[in-house]
Amino acid sequence: MPLVQITLLKGKSTAYVRAVADGIHQALVETFETPSKDRFQVIHQMAQEDFIVDSDYLNVHRTDDAIVILITASKTRSTATKQAFYKAVTDNLSRNPGVRPQDVQIILSPNEREDWSFGNGIASYVPVEGR
Amino acid sequence: MPLVQITLLKGKSTAYVRAVADGIHQALVETFETPSKDRFQVIHQMAQEDFIVDSDYLNVHRTDDAIVILITASKTRSTATKQAFYKAVTDNLSRNPGVRPQDVQIILSPNEREDWSFGNGIASYVPVEGR
Amino acid sequence: MPLVQITLLKGKSTAYVRAVADGIHQALVETFETPSKDRFQVIHQMAQEDFIVDSDYLNVHRTDDAIVILITASKTRSTATKQAFYKAVTDNLSRNPGVRPQDVQIILSPNEREDWSFGNGIASYVPVEGR
Repeated sequence: MPLVQITLLKGKSTAYVRAVADGIHQALVETFETPSKDRFQVIHQMAQEDFIVDSDYLNVHRTDDAIVILITASKTRSTATKQAFYKAVTDNLSRNPGVRPQDVQIILSPNEREDWSFGNGIASYVPVEGR
Repeated sequence: MPLVQITLLKGKSTAYVRAVADGIHQALVETFETPSKDRFQVIHQMAQEDFIVDSDYLNVHRTDDAIVILITASKTRSTATKQAFYKAVTDNLSRNPGVRPQDVQIILSPNEREDWSFGNGIASYVPVEGR
Repeated sequence: MPLVQITLLKGKSTAYVRAVADGIHQALVETFETPSKDRFQVIHQMAQEDFIVDSDYLNVHRTDDAIVILITASKTRSTATKQAFYKAVTDNLSRNPGVRPQDVQIILSPNEREDWSFGNGIASYVPVEGR
């Protein structure tokens, strides 16, 4: 169900960017109640002047490798689930492709289950009456 | 009031992309309580490696023609209205430019009426006291 | 805490675009309870055919200089705060780089405080037990 928008500076290799996308998806599957086939990701590779990330907010030192991950997802997950997810993303990306934990920024954007249509013009998660 | 973000693979003609944008807007007007002049659309045409869409989730077969439509809109619409909207978008895009219904993914992102400023620095939908 | 997505037509100078980004951030700090270091902005400079803005909705006359500002932010701000923010953004951009007030469109997208991770894999605004 999540829609994942990933923003980072351009200039990384295709393999690096794919590892970022894979690591985020793996964290969704492992910790965020997401089926493995439920993968919808958009990656925005930005010019330097179009991506502004504070290098110090909350005393976290960010670099030009900073990644901003905006995830639209139904608001069915608990606080503990969100916390496990943030840690899993950061652990995965730290392992591969080697993103510093300080450079991983994650923002969740909540909606409802009826706010999703996965093709065929239906509200995919709304039960059909009489079935 | 809706803000529409449309994401698809690049490589389509300008006419094709415009028909997609037109069909979505027409569905908003027809089924989603949207005035015809209330049109604000951003279209992201992506490189293949920057747009990842599962080809099979929920047993819906998606192709490289998949479109992801993210719509920020006030949460004033009923479930039935949302269902009618999903169907209208899919019907419109199927007719023109000929998008397969399986390839139309729609996600709603809810906010409040006071969350909109349509120019001039005012909250456009908040009643002004004393008027 | 806000994530700011700025969309405008490409073709403006780097200084113009930076003034837009600066003016929005300054308004957040001045009126929207945002620390000055809390700056995370993504700027999408679009081709004409990929950015559709009605030139007349609500009798506000918009031009090719229209800017759409989508801000994900915790829903902790009052209506009055939002109104002050809309005015501050519009005033700032009018002064520098000289954007017409009619061309400034602002949309807020609300989430919760636990929906933010600013690095290190933690929910940055969730209190840690026992501390």
